[in-house]
Amino acid sequence: MVNQTSGVLYGLGVGPGDPELLTLKAVRLLNECAVVAYPAPETGAGLAWEIAKPHLSASPEVLPLRLPISVDPFPAQQAYDDAAESLATRLTSGKSVAVLCEGDPLFYGSFMYLLERLSGKFRIEVVPGVSSPMACAAALGWPLVAHNELLTVLPGPLPEAELESRLQAPGVFVLMKVGRHFTKLRDLLNRCDLADDACYVEHATRPDQRVLPLDEVDPETVPYFSMILARRA
Amino acid sequence: MVNQTSGVLYGLGVGPGDPELLTLKAVRLLNECAVVAYPAPETGAGLAWEIAKPHLSASPEVLPLRLPISVDPFPAQQAYDDAAESLATRLTSGKSVAVLCEGDPLFYGSFMYLLERLSGKFRIEVVPGVSSPMACAAALGWPLVAHNELLTVLPGPLPEAELESRLQAPGVFVLMKVGRHFTKLRDLLNRCDLADDACYVEHATRPDQRVLPLDEVDPETVPYFSMILARRA
Repeated sequence: MVNQTSGVLYGLGVGPGDPELLTLKAVRLLNECAVVAYPAPETGAGLAWEIAKPHLSASPEVLPLRLPISVDPFPAQQAYDDAAESLATRLTSGKSVAVLCEGDPLFYGSFMYLLERLSGKFRIEVVPGVSSPMACAAALGWPLVAHNELLTVLPGPLPEAELESRLQAPGVFVLMKVGRHFTKLRDLLNRCDLADDACYVEHATRPDQRVLPLDEVDPETVPYFSMILARRA
Repeated sequence: MVNQTSGVLYGLGVGPGDPELLTLKAVRLLNECAVVAYPAPETGAGLAWEIAKPHLSASPEVLPLRLPISVDPFPAQQAYDDAAESLATRLTSGKSVAVLCEGDPLFYGSFMYLLERLSGKFRIEVVPGVSSPMACAAALGWPLVAHNELLTVLPGPLPEAELESRLQAPGVFVLMKVGRHFTKLRDLLNRCDLADDACYVEHATRPDQRVLPLDEVDPETVPYFSMILARRA
């Protein structure tokens, strides 16, 4: 049963990287909540906090959540249990909490692991954010999808056979979470005749944004926040 | 060759409907451009203008573009030629132009038909916006995609056989541009065992937003701006 005297949990999408791509709603709630939480790596602040921080004019409690980055294996349950507990304490005391999320909270975001733990117990609102496929298309100046094209979004860590079968479809492909899977994905796109027009984008909308054809990418340098866009003409 | 003394053409994503989901960047450029253009129906102002208007504090030239709504058949070329010509005149005279786009400019947006006509002649920048699949997931409080799930985006006007073949994939499905295709799509989802957990959303983030299970939707009332989300568990 949802506790109506508790604070509200907000999942705030902060967009792909450029702080100017926050929505007005995210900026307002960032400054209205008593607590601002964000996923943080073992050390340092994390991207979501870096993106949102320039817009913070209030003085909330700032709460880094030490969550495993969402790569294989499946997120460590204990870290999420602890984070949810820590948010629940604040919410129960009547404080509203904003959890900052890179891109959109529900598009491959770690927010959903908090959502599933706190759903039904507290009021929760998700504020959608600008998502990375749209940011990458903007960086390229390409249509992402036009008219009645199909779009298939494929996480890079999927097994090769599964990816290859999906890459036979018509339309547009967004390959997410490229990182250390770059070589596998590039070779697959070559085999599927998709590599020539494919494009690689890293850190879209950030000052260090890079846009490259696949054959100019050094696989050793590919970060987790990178993407490949491809189209079957 | 790009004319450097001309104005800049901006494709501004204004988000799915709630005016508070504009980005800070879209609000800034809306108020910096000498001309603000937007796709408008035969009569009336159009959704993109309605969404952005509350944030306009400057006094630009306001230019409605009478463009065919992007349903079958393929957009009338002449209307886009005329609109591009009308934008080119302003750009050549040194004025920057903001074209307002519902959701994201490059995600099934009509902006790309202007982009292809003006690309290479003028400086063009696309400002990504919050897109409808993310807005619908937020409305439902569902993860759109988690961990290594696949996402397939399918426009409702596609032929039934093509849709049915794509709906065999694992993962999550976003059916766009539902409108008059609702009955076909509902029946397809039933045949593919996807209907029970599917959800229908119209006018996400607008005051008239509606979220319904498929069997409670009256097919006669389904607008163009509606969507079905389904998941193969």
